[in-house]
Amino acid sequence: MECIFCKIVNKEVPSEKIAETETVLAFLDINPKAETHILIIPKTHIASIADPGAENVVGDLVKMAKQIAESHNISGYKLLFNVGREGGQMVDHLHLHFLSGKVTELP
Amino acid sequence: MECIFCKIVNKEVPSEKIAETETVLAFLDINPKAETHILIIPKTHIASIADPGAENVVGDLVKMAKQIAESHNISGYKLLFNVGREGGQMVDHLHLHFLSGKVTELP
Repeated sequence: MECIFCKIVNKEVPSEKIAETETVLAFLDINPKAETHILIIPKTHIASIADPGAENVVGDLVKMAKQIAESHNISGYKLLFNVGREGGQMVDHLHLHFLSGKVTELP
Repeated sequence: MECIFCKIVNKEVPSEKIAETETVLAFLDINPKAETHILIIPKTHIASIADPGAENVVGDLVKMAKQIAESHNISGYKLLFNVGREGGQMVDHLHLHFLSGKVTELP
């Protein structure tokens, strides 16, 4: 199993955890493109938004984003899915970018 | 009723429609920030991702994005929600930005 995000879920690779539920994990992006740059992922391996049924988990990812915003008193933020290499997706495990503050570069 | 996107749904304001279901409408952004820049909205008025329960409609918006990508043979794209003025949200009716090709400016 070579997926870096699955390894983060399984604690084989360390991460700075922000929040967690039974099905979703949020952790800091190690290469931040904004003042606050968090990745929110399903714990099960789904490669991409383009996968069949992937749309059924995005509600859970967005719900966690809202909870993080509320608990950190963040009123303005961006939620971004990159799809495919040309869309900027660098890791083939579905992830939602949570960006707030100045965005230095589009992930 | 002053919401510009509700007026587009009700055809009081014209738009270049891309796709439509019973609950979701997709149309071209009039001020495109990418080669392809489509807005995907719920037909009912929801102000923001931050609204209670808004996470329950994002699956439908993402599903339409996937259908548009497939029907237009777009393999790489970005899906973006802006939340709040500081997050870049300019219209207070929930909308998902579909961006593909060169992004000239972050919406």
